[in-house]
Amino acid sequence: MKLLEDRIRREGKVAPGNVLRVDGFINHQMDIELMEQLAAEFRRLFDGEKIDKILTIEASGIGIACLTAQAFHVPLVFAKKSKTSNVSDDLYSAPVKSYTHGTVSQVIVSKEFLHEDEHVLLIDDFLAHGEALQGLISIVEQAGGVVVGAGILIEKAFQDGGKRIRGRGVRVESLARVASMSPEGGVEFID
Amino acid sequence: MKLLEDRIRREGKVAPGNVLRVDGFINHQMDIELMEQLAAEFRRLFDGEKIDKILTIEASGIGIACLTAQAFHVPLVFAKKSKTSNVSDDLYSAPVKSYTHGTVSQVIVSKEFLHEDEHVLLIDDFLAHGEALQGLISIVEQAGGVVVGAGILIEKAFQDGGKRIRGRGVRVESLARVASMSPEGGVEFID
Repeated sequence: MKLLEDRIRREGKVAPGNVLRVDGFINHQMDIELMEQLAAEFRRLFDGEKIDKILTIEASGIGIACLTAQAFHVPLVFAKKSKTSNVSDDLYSAPVKSYTHGTVSQVIVSKEFLHEDEHVLLIDDFLAHGEALQGLISIVEQAGGVVVGAGILIEKAFQDGGKRIRGRGVRVESLARVASMSPEGGVEFID
Repeated sequence: MKLLEDRIRREGKVAPGNVLRVDGFINHQMDIELMEQLAAEFRRLFDGEKIDKILTIEASGIGIACLTAQAFHVPLVFAKKSKTSNVSDDLYSAPVKSYTHGTVSQVIVSKEFLHEDEHVLLIDDFLAHGEALQGLISIVEQAGGVVVGAGILIEKAFQDGGKRIRGRGVRVESLARVASMSPEGGVEFID
């Protein structure tokens, strides 16, 4: 999607270690008008699909997932990275490795909020190794639900997550697919 | 606000240890249509105020903060609970104790995203001891910004956070103020 690619070219910052910083408009400060347009694009791409619920994972996916849920007029569920006292004990869970944080966490969703035969659209800001997305897919499958697909803002297409998830037969729609990036050369996209 | 109080009475669950579970519509599964109405109420309450930016703290405040930012047509910034590789090193920070998680974390905001004289509205889902809110106020003050006020979904008015924050001269608008609650007696509100 040109709108997002242009914004990444203009304001994204590439740091060593394959880090793409988009914290000025996506994952620290959020440009809500841009996010609304990106949510509308997910609405367009998955138009005609039965979607009962949006599922994302805390924290930085919540903003775009919230606006996408608004666009589809369905509830949003966000998977949590730790069990807190305000969550029930009856949970689906899956291990998720974070390359950003260097940790493995058990991602959880209360069994109350995902049901058999529900059609679930997964939303997240980044897709790189695909760990978070695989965790969410596992959780929907544990509930007996149907994964309609995944809407991703930025896919690092030079890493293997997209290939692995698509290889499982899951439809992945990424609004910007990064072919390569470097601090010197900037960001190149797959068109 | 009657809409929110009624929903809490109907679907909120009181657990031992002063835990009010609203995970069916606010902080795990999110009822987006309800959230839109609550965001519109913040818009109404703070109408006429100069507001340049919404500030919240990850994770469960992001949804309502996102929709409130949408209602005010301003950007959203969410403070982070840990420094990750996709954030700059030039930070404002404040310690925040979490009674839910039983931890103290250093909450951070990149200096790029808060500026002198900016008028900032704080948004969060819960106000209890006021730790998160005090951290956010400190961060805005470090930046030389102006705290316009705080919009809170649910205030546990039997705890001291609201009193402490209002005592500092900060306007706090809570859409539901819990006077008392118990697993047997349910939830009572201050009208």
